[in-house]
Amino acid sequence: MIDQLIDSIEKLQNPTVVGLDPRLEFIPGPIREEAFDRYGKTLKGASKAFYQFNKEIIDQVKDIVPAVKPQVAMYEQYGYEGIKAYMDTIEYAKAQGLIVIGDIKRGDIASTAKAYSDGHIGIVNIDGEGLEVFKEDFITLNPYLGYDSIEPYVKNLNERNKGLFILVKTSNPNSKEIQNLPVEGELLYQRVAKLLKTWGEEAMGERGYSRMGAVVGATHPGDAETIRKILPNTFFLVPGYGAQGASAEDLVPNFNKGGRGAIINSSRGIIAAYKNEKYKKDFETKDFAKAAREAALDMKKDLQRVMD
Amino acid sequence: MIDQLIDSIEKLQNPTVVGLDPRLEFIPGPIREEAFDRYGKTLKGASKAFYQFNKEIIDQVKDIVPAVKPQVAMYEQYGYEGIKAYMDTIEYAKAQGLIVIGDIKRGDIASTAKAYSDGHIGIVNIDGEGLEVFKEDFITLNPYLGYDSIEPYVKNLNERNKGLFILVKTSNPNSKEIQNLPVEGELLYQRVAKLLKTWGEEAMGERGYSRMGAVVGATHPGDAETIRKILPNTFFLVPGYGAQGASAEDLVPNFNKGGRGAIINSSRGIIAAYKNEKYKKDFETKDFAKAAREAALDMKKDLQRVMD
Repeated sequence: MIDQLIDSIEKLQNPTVVGLDPRLEFIPGPIREEAFDRYGKTLKGASKAFYQFNKEIIDQVKDIVPAVKPQVAMYEQYGYEGIKAYMDTIEYAKAQGLIVIGDIKRGDIASTAKAYSDGHIGIVNIDGEGLEVFKEDFITLNPYLGYDSIEPYVKNLNERNKGLFILVKTSNPNSKEIQNLPVEGELLYQRVAKLLKTWGEEAMGERGYSRMGAVVGATHPGDAETIRKILPNTFFLVPGYGAQGASAEDLVPNFNKGGRGAIINSSRGIIAAYKNEKYKKDFETKDFAKAAREAALDMKKDLQRVMD
Repeated sequence: MIDQLIDSIEKLQNPTVVGLDPRLEFIPGPIREEAFDRYGKTLKGASKAFYQFNKEIIDQVKDIVPAVKPQVAMYEQYGYEGIKAYMDTIEYAKAQGLIVIGDIKRGDIASTAKAYSDGHIGIVNIDGEGLEVFKEDFITLNPYLGYDSIEPYVKNLNERNKGLFILVKTSNPNSKEIQNLPVEGELLYQRVAKLLKTWGEEAMGERGYSRMGAVVGATHPGDAETIRKILPNTFFLVPGYGAQGASAEDLVPNFNKGGRGAIINSSRGIIAAYKNEKYKKDFETKDFAKAAREAALDMKKDLQRVMD
């Protein structure tokens, strides 16, 4: 799927992934009311509102961006009903031709990792019946437990053409607390990057990048530059642009020559654009998805500006 | 809840938590067949079989152990139906008087962590309706992102009497790869333990232990000894006993004086005891839950032997 992601970015000339991280306060009144009228102010009501919201956003961005990234926590907080909305969103996005990155950040010992791997990017076996469950194309993972927590995914990467993005350096302010600790003459995130380089060699795609990518926050451009040097053949998933504070200029170190090798996430900057002063004047609440489209087009322009 | 956990361990004289990590191959034929006859070999069928299995185990161990620890991955792999079985299991275990540790190992940036916190140990607000969703008493978290990924849980710890166990040193063989890296004269897991010491001071319970505990694998007794010295007032959740290879003797360094300050997990050693040669001769498949009870009593004896 890493090859398809690269193809799609090139075709659309846009290395953007839209973060589908809905919150009730982002959902326009009419969608919320329709869901609550039908299902009450319940976990199901909230989840149905999320799914409807996501569908309308997906319809408006599917010809502009190659991928969407639902953050599972936003759904999981509503229990199994929320997880159903997460799964329905993945199904809908894929049916519209989008690549789906499940932002799940799981990390566990091997026997447990196998369950996550089978459920999210593999096949679950129910007494001889093989079922695909979550169906993400990529998922994110946490490396703190070491390679035996990653290895159970490798078979699904290679045999089922799936992908991973492993946390190397996250976008949050406190990421330095552990990730930037000095380890034998380098910083921890650099060591993690070197481990990932070795791990990723087992899962190379056809277009020069591994199926095992890295999460590298846009909010630390100096660190990104270091990681890019360690990992020339690793694709970067880059959160932190826009609402978290990183500018297009900050993104430059994440890319290889020719603007290759990275995809930039924006969540509320796109999906809640209609609440932003910049778009409010041109889009009414009912046109929230069109505002998202406009914000996605603006982001594409902003990225193209610095990538040239 | 840390105080209640300590009380219950003392009352039962048993620092054991039963890991409810079902797999289809652990579920006795009759339970599987009933679920599949009714719901097919589907995600729902598997999930219903898990719930029935868990209920029977819970009924047999509830007067012996203070707590159960469902591993969410085992349920999550079956999608939203699996998550429903996870939630139903928590509800049932709590109704039987057990304390529930949700082994979720989440870890994400602050805004996302808040969603996990609200959903798992807090209150989710749906347009003015406050709902408890997962209802665990404790959950496990991954520290790789630093304190701003932990802070969103603190309010729920203190205001709602909930608890955390944060990964310090995990039980898997490759845990040393990152967790034992040398950092300024100590090892990374020691630094994480020191961070946890500071973080945990914000959430002290009444009985001398913080509401913010540590996960410390039983498979590395030397490391456990070091961590215990750094964290005298931190409660340890200790996986790795039994099936993962640690003996009762290996557990000793995890405890404070008087056998206090730690709870030991056993999953398949208890829930799948009926498949073990030791119990096979005395228990038929239909008595799988009684075999689990016997295994739980044997574990209690084994722990008491070394704690004296």
